[in-house]
Amino acid sequence: MALGFLTDRLDRADRSEAKEVEAPQAPLPRESLESLHLFGPRCTWLVAMLLVQSVSSLILDSFKGLMQRHMSLTFFLTMLVGLGGNAGGQSVVLTVRRLALGKPVQVKEQLHVGLLLVLVMAPLAFVRAYMQQTPLSESLTVGAAAAVITVCATIVGTALPKLLWFFNVDPAHGAVGVQVLMDIAGIAIVCGLGYLFLELPAKFAK
Amino acid sequence: MALGFLTDRLDRADRSEAKEVEAPQAPLPRESLESLHLFGPRCTWLVAMLLVQSVSSLILDSFKGLMQRHMSLTFFLTMLVGLGGNAGGQSVVLTVRRLALGKPVQVKEQLHVGLLLVLVMAPLAFVRAYMQQTPLSESLTVGAAAAVITVCATIVGTALPKLLWFFNVDPAHGAVGVQVLMDIAGIAIVCGLGYLFLELPAKFAK
Repeated sequence: MALGFLTDRLDRADRSEAKEVEAPQAPLPRESLESLHLFGPRCTWLVAMLLVQSVSSLILDSFKGLMQRHMSLTFFLTMLVGLGGNAGGQSVVLTVRRLALGKPVQVKEQLHVGLLLVLVMAPLAFVRAYMQQTPLSESLTVGAAAAVITVCATIVGTALPKLLWFFNVDPAHGAVGVQVLMDIAGIAIVCGLGYLFLELPAKFAK
Repeated sequence: MALGFLTDRLDRADRSEAKEVEAPQAPLPRESLESLHLFGPRCTWLVAMLLVQSVSSLILDSFKGLMQRHMSLTFFLTMLVGLGGNAGGQSVVLTVRRLALGKPVQVKEQLHVGLLLVLVMAPLAFVRAYMQQTPLSESLTVGAAAAVITVCATIVGTALPKLLWFFNVDPAHGAVGVQVLMDIAGIAIVCGLGYLFLELPAKFAK
């Protein structure tokens, strides 16, 4: 979350590296780019991120019934949302590095990696939930959510910086983007799968 | 979350900058440091982070009653936990930069900034929760949690890299540390304040 200051740092590192090749004796005037130590910019970032991330509360609110009936799902929300941010962040960094080196970036390739990661992460998330006396159906939902979140995160984490790069925007900004997107998408995926696996069968049974 | 790969990148950027001064014609053999594109290291990182972040589910599980009686608190968990990661991450980056430039880093100074940030973030979190038809007492808990989380995040985000630096460990690793710590601390703070504000008064009233 809020990797803006880090990506800014990366930008500058990248730019200073580029500068290095042209004229190593003349580094960028870095001090002029620094603003995080000022109260205004720092506070503005925090306010913006808080408001965007609060969208997650709207989604959860609209699935209030599901969450009340299956409390265990809420216990694993932070873990699952974190997984999306982590896996997506990894893909962004890999993509930014490959683009910087002029290497080709293929979403299909990262989708393949995402599917391989699912083979480890989904069973792990399921076992972790089941170990905590979580009912089988809810543990399976946690595992399935881990699978969908991992695949989505690797795709978004690759496609987003590639898209930014295509539109001449620094792909490093994808680091913030993927964290915010996967925070909200993660919540939506858990709620959606919860409805599909835990609520729908009960409705059909009636 | 999982900023390890980013801080690694920063480390290398820093090291290459240092190298620049000594011998600009001989950059570090960067390729040898790269491992994130390999399945093993990437998956190991994700597994480790998932297991650490799953501690949050144990805390929530032990406050199950509170969460069931005050569902609105769970809706704002992702937003509040995100705030801790964001504010803490900002402090880490500021501290790492100051240490790199040989400037003094004072936890007291960041505590002061944290208290100023609280003046904006706590009312904002309260209003955001209250706007969503959250009961007044729960909205106040969300606001109070935002306050405590913001102050904790700025302190931990400053003290952790300073501590790492003191023990000759790269302070940049504080970026991962603060995210994981504030994920878990954030959940604990919301649960603790929820118990204090929403459960204790009811017990005394009996």
